[in-house]
Amino acid sequence: MDYVGKSHIRVDAYGKVTGKAKYTADLCPKNALVAKVLHSTIANGEVVDIDISEAKKVPGVVGVFTCFDVPDIEFPTAGHPYNLDPSHLDPADRKLLNKRVRLYGDDVAAVVAEDEVAAVQALKKIKVTYNEFKPYVTARASMQDEAPVLHPNISKSNCFSHISFKSSNDFNYDEAKKKAIEKYGEDNLVEVCANIKTPLISHCHIELPVSYAYVDTNGKVTVVSSTQIPHICRRVVAHALGLPWGKVRVIKPYIGGGFGNKQDVLYEPLCAWLSTQVGGRPVFLEISREETIVGTRTRHPMDGDVRGLITKDGKYVARELVNYVQNGGYAGHGASITAKCTGIFKNIYKDELGVNSEAYTVYTNAPTSAAMRAYGVPQACSFSEFLTDDLCFKAGLDPVKFRLENCADENSITGDQKFYTYGLKKCIEEGAKHIKWDEKRKAYQNQTGNIRRGVGMGIFIYQTAVWPISEEISAIRMVLNQDGSIQVQSGATEIGQGADTVWTQMSAEATGISFDKIYVMSTQDTDLTPFDFGAFGSRQSYVVGFAIKTCGELLKKKIIDRAVDLELTKGKKADELDIKNNNVVDKSGATVVSVGDVAMNSLYSQTKAEHIVAECTKQTLTNTFASGCTFVDIEVDMALGKIKINDIINVHDSGTVLNPALASAQVHGGMSMSLGYGLSEELLIDEKTGKPLNDNLLDYKIPTAMDAPDYSVAFIDMKDPTGGFGNKALGEPPAITASAAIRNAVLNATGVSFYQLPLTSQRLVAGFKEKGLID
Amino acid sequence: MDYVGKSHIRVDAYGKVTGKAKYTADLCPKNALVAKVLHSTIANGEVVDIDISEAKKVPGVVGVFTCFDVPDIEFPTAGHPYNLDPSHLDPADRKLLNKRVRLYGDDVAAVVAEDEVAAVQALKKIKVTYNEFKPYVTARASMQDEAPVLHPNISKSNCFSHISFKSSNDFNYDEAKKKAIEKYGEDNLVEVCANIKTPLISHCHIELPVSYAYVDTNGKVTVVSSTQIPHICRRVVAHALGLPWGKVRVIKPYIGGGFGNKQDVLYEPLCAWLSTQVGGRPVFLEISREETIVGTRTRHPMDGDVRGLITKDGKYVARELVNYVQNGGYAGHGASITAKCTGIFKNIYKDELGVNSEAYTVYTNAPTSAAMRAYGVPQACSFSEFLTDDLCFKAGLDPVKFRLENCADENSITGDQKFYTYGLKKCIEEGAKHIKWDEKRKAYQNQTGNIRRGVGMGIFIYQTAVWPISEEISAIRMVLNQDGSIQVQSGATEIGQGADTVWTQMSAEATGISFDKIYVMSTQDTDLTPFDFGAFGSRQSYVVGFAIKTCGELLKKKIIDRAVDLELTKGKKADELDIKNNNVVDKSGATVVSVGDVAMNSLYSQTKAEHIVAECTKQTLTNTFASGCTFVDIEVDMALGKIKINDIINVHDSGTVLNPALASAQVHGGMSMSLGYGLSEELLIDEKTGKPLNDNLLDYKIPTAMDAPDYSVAFIDMKDPTGGFGNKALGEPPAITASAAIRNAVLNATGVSFYQLPLTSQRLVAGFKEKGLID
Repeated sequence: MDYVGKSHIRVDAYGKVTGKAKYTADLCPKNALVAKVLHSTIANGEVVDIDISEAKKVPGVVGVFTCFDVPDIEFPTAGHPYNLDPSHLDPADRKLLNKRVRLYGDDVAAVVAEDEVAAVQALKKIKVTYNEFKPYVTARASMQDEAPVLHPNISKSNCFSHISFKSSNDFNYDEAKKKAIEKYGEDNLVEVCANIKTPLISHCHIELPVSYAYVDTNGKVTVVSSTQIPHICRRVVAHALGLPWGKVRVIKPYIGGGFGNKQDVLYEPLCAWLSTQVGGRPVFLEISREETIVGTRTRHPMDGDVRGLITKDGKYVARELVNYVQNGGYAGHGASITAKCTGIFKNIYKDELGVNSEAYTVYTNAPTSAAMRAYGVPQACSFSEFLTDDLCFKAGLDPVKFRLENCADENSITGDQKFYTYGLKKCIEEGAKHIKWDEKRKAYQNQTGNIRRGVGMGIFIYQTAVWPISEEISAIRMVLNQDGSIQVQSGATEIGQGADTVWTQMSAEATGISFDKIYVMSTQDTDLTPFDFGAFGSRQSYVVGFAIKTCGELLKKKIIDRAVDLELTKGKKADELDIKNNNVVDKSGATVVSVGDVAMNSLYSQTKAEHIVAECTKQTLTNTFASGCTFVDIEVDMALGKIKINDIINVHDSGTVLNPALASAQVHGGMSMSLGYGLSEELLIDEKTGKPLNDNLLDYKIPTAMDAPDYSVAFIDMKDPTGGFGNKALGEPPAITASAAIRNAVLNATGVSFYQLPLTSQRLVAGFKEKGLID
Repeated sequence: MDYVGKSHIRVDAYGKVTGKAKYTADLCPKNALVAKVLHSTIANGEVVDIDISEAKKVPGVVGVFTCFDVPDIEFPTAGHPYNLDPSHLDPADRKLLNKRVRLYGDDVAAVVAEDEVAAVQALKKIKVTYNEFKPYVTARASMQDEAPVLHPNISKSNCFSHISFKSSNDFNYDEAKKKAIEKYGEDNLVEVCANIKTPLISHCHIELPVSYAYVDTNGKVTVVSSTQIPHICRRVVAHALGLPWGKVRVIKPYIGGGFGNKQDVLYEPLCAWLSTQVGGRPVFLEISREETIVGTRTRHPMDGDVRGLITKDGKYVARELVNYVQNGGYAGHGASITAKCTGIFKNIYKDELGVNSEAYTVYTNAPTSAAMRAYGVPQACSFSEFLTDDLCFKAGLDPVKFRLENCADENSITGDQKFYTYGLKKCIEEGAKHIKWDEKRKAYQNQTGNIRRGVGMGIFIYQTAVWPISEEISAIRMVLNQDGSIQVQSGATEIGQGADTVWTQMSAEATGISFDKIYVMSTQDTDLTPFDFGAFGSRQSYVVGFAIKTCGELLKKKIIDRAVDLELTKGKKADELDIKNNNVVDKSGATVVSVGDVAMNSLYSQTKAEHIVAECTKQTLTNTFASGCTFVDIEVDMALGKIKINDIINVHDSGTVLNPALASAQVHGGMSMSLGYGLSEELLIDEKTGKPLNDNLLDYKIPTAMDAPDYSVAFIDMKDPTGGFGNKALGEPPAITASAAIRNAVLNATGVSFYQLPLTSQRLVAGFKEKGLID
């Protein structure tokens, strides 16, 4: 390939480093009103009364709106493709402002004012009277009979989803264990049972959720937003406001990160509605970091009871996960993230006698959990990889060899989602080689002293896109300019990951027009951009790739056909021609006419003029698994409970690597997130009050540049036969396994199994003390 | 038709009256730099030196640029469709800033500063040294040998175009006159010879020329401008800056009028270039009313020697126009406007022995004349209608009867531009009836006293669009939303005339989707909008109409085909189905499925999804003549030289009237412009210095609301067979004939022929004195 597979510089690099790139807040009209939201100070209860009389008197206040004023419409916020089957729709479980308070920080009122100062002053003067209930923060707590049901319209109990994915319908772990004992004898088996907990964390994207809305001259409610999912956002805003979908327009400029938080529709509906309440004037609504951490979305904390059974000679016999998923106050993506976690746990290993992966997804009085990079799979791989290493440790088996024997392979997963190419074992081998696994495992045996070293690993598998769980389509439009350059329009979104650059490479590949002559329109506008669901599920490069390939070939055909029709091809027919490097060429590769000349002759023909454009929708009906692993070499300061990363590598099987430099950067970012997940990030909620204890970036610890080790990255570059350009998922997978690999390296270094992330100093010191390793 | 022909309220009415509608200046980024232009203080000469040292010291100045800094590229500014034949291109005769000064107020330097105050202060500190030549303002003066040649690269003499349209190649007026005398005898003939002068006037659009430019993140030079012609503007900006066309993007928001002035590319290239000189930062360039009047474009003053010969019993025998056209410093649209004027003069009457219409278009040291509403035809009809009424007066013939006998008819014009439907005589009859012509002509005979009344009339013919002089194409894209509503995108521009509303009606008609569900995207963006040349030549409703009809039918077909494919049509096949009122209906008119349901099922099909859109280019290869007339009843205060309009009507044959309310408003506006042309508007240039004497709206007199009489309007509503919706030109024609009708009414009232517009009090009083009618 001429363009795909090369490390082209990002098309937005210059604009972003020079500050030219415009984000939502940059674009907001000068005269916009400012909206601020009043959040509940209780975690569970009802608003009985709101007194806004004093708030309305604040100079500059244009309007004060409460949960008693909003439309009586409940809507879902998850950024899922719509489905014509109502049973596939997400729970519609919240209003624009909520009388029924389900979490601390729920939205109960809003102020619109001429400026931020007036809005904030007015907020302080709103008096809310609550009828307060006891909060139930965790999944297990909220499943108790005593807990008030948070969404009786959605579910009779707070557990709104219970699923069980089994290797076969009649699989039962205890029965399997009995069978295994019969087959192998109890002495030849090793079992581990554990309770594993993953933390509640925040996405910590740089740009806070921000939108502004106005009613346009044509009566459309127009929302400019930092969203990953403009077309879905349009639908949800329309739903929330009770409007026909075409009456809403969503525009998405550059965005400063999302990581899944902006795959939920957050304050866009409220912002839009507030504008309709103040005569359609532009209303700007940006929330603070504190509001973002508490009131938007988080990664699901999961609390899983795992059991695993292996033979002493290294064969997985049976596994079980019973997972209690704290979903927080609203459904968001709840059940589907749990489902993804549950499915990956089931599929990541081959179990001789089977597996049960089971989960309860539960409304609780905690921040709402929803999509976050890798969508339940960091949790799944915490369960699977902690368990697997514990089993190996207990059986004295080598975790690499064990995984090479037992991990999912090209035949173990069947159905619509499967490995069309398989590179996981190669990834493991490559990672082991890089980290000098065998050598270090030997060297790190029998350590004593305060500093102890260890190596660890973790593996993952990950679907590309969301088919067949949801529909997968993408549409592309290409517009030819007079100089032979083109614009490429897509509803898929650049969210910082480099999508625009990869679309440019793909478009060049598909059309024969060179990289520098391809202009991807970065801004999505639901009124104009071809349809696409947006950035999530590691879908875009795969699904959009198909669409670009199809549309590019259509454009190429149109250009060649026009060249023939306009008699520019020296008598050569369309089937003898191709486009390469901006020229229509013949079979020998010789230039027949430039694309620019075809464009000019086509547009300015006095008798048969045509503006050459191509547009098409491409539906994706395949889904291929990506996979990979992290290997890490750490040292543990036993007394301080401090982990230092000496070496870390992610190895990915993501099919063809579209842009190696961008791919590496993507992996670096993901590894950094996984380090935070493993070592320091945790949003603490007081279980008595439901109040967050560290809802700010001073107390909530994300890794900084100072905390970052040197990241190594390797790719098993295998062209996937289904991918438009041979590529598979890479957006989310890098965020999955570093945390598990580190946890397993701690086990290797110290012999201590930890079951709760993050591995803070407190937890490590407590663990080491418990085992008598330190005083 | 269900939607076309009805007086739908403008789709932009609410947005415009409430101030929601955004114009260029509203959209400019808050941090934009401000540019100001330094204009020459001489009308003819050369810049020898510019000292910018003091200007650069002004705090806030970012850059000072002179005619010595700009690219050595000469470019044309006319808003004509591009032509692949270089001989059809407009003269490339100016640079971004000009060393060779051709008019008072020529652009010689520019300042870019942090704010307007700094920019203006810096302008004042620039010191320019000129080598000054004597100015030659008028066409006849500038044709003298002594006048320096202004554009030696374009033309060896200042007369850069001489054309002669004759009834036959060998036609000669003097020969024809001889033949006529032989045939009819001298006593049976009446001849009038006169010199007729039309004034230099300004368009006086409300919104001044304004643009801002920046270099976007993708390296594109992006210009947001109040232009009628975004796609042409893109080409000219690229030409001026020496860039590939695809490297330039032009965006056009709502604009506050243009009337042809914004059919030239004005300061967009300079604004764009200035941005490139300051690191791509946004640069805002808005000029003042004074700069607009002097330095942008004007209506050509013409100085024509006319001769006409009729028989006493009322037959046109021969005519001649030899026209000296003052084009000003730069070519603009020069030769093509002269050509249109020359052609209309030739074709408007049938001459038994023939006609010669001839013109010299001349560069002079005066404001550049270019496109203005009706493009040379107000001048043509001044020549033809003054002459015709003088002949009738002299021969004692009735001007209405004479015109009914002699005016152009369905057979008199042949070729690509012709009458496909013909309503001129019906217009004349309707106008005469309204004004009570016969009754008043009788009543107004033999008046004396200070107040004298008169009736007068004038006729016009006018082509629809520009084919075959230039190419005519228009492309449309329609995008279907989930609720069955659509967006319609066009490169044709709403410039205040109501285009968006008419596109909405046409789109409803073509698709079967109702008016309220059609959203025309008002903003053009050359990167995204389908190609169209823009608003000029009364082309849009005609040419875009074809495209909307074609695209609408394509969309309809796609919707029906998808409905069948998705099995939503109860077994009915595509050819049994149509779309009416948002539903797919069968032959009986019964609803089969709603368009919204087809959209939903198409977009969200799990196996064969498609985003339904339609896009196509339609080329127009016909051109049909519109026609019409003005009738007026006035009274003249002889002593004051003051004309009062008692009654005035325009009657138009514009084919099917697309929206009667909008059409009437369009005619009101045109009549008002023609009143100004006839009565008060004239930009005076001092012939010794070339300096304008009244370059402001205090001294330059446009009619105000207080000056406006009640306008009457009538239409001869005949469906044209070529028009997409039966329509013909209506944009410009209303501005043509009121001035001539008034002038002829003065002749009727007073017996005095005036040959120079406007009919100011000074001119009337002088004329009446000369004839001894007043002391």
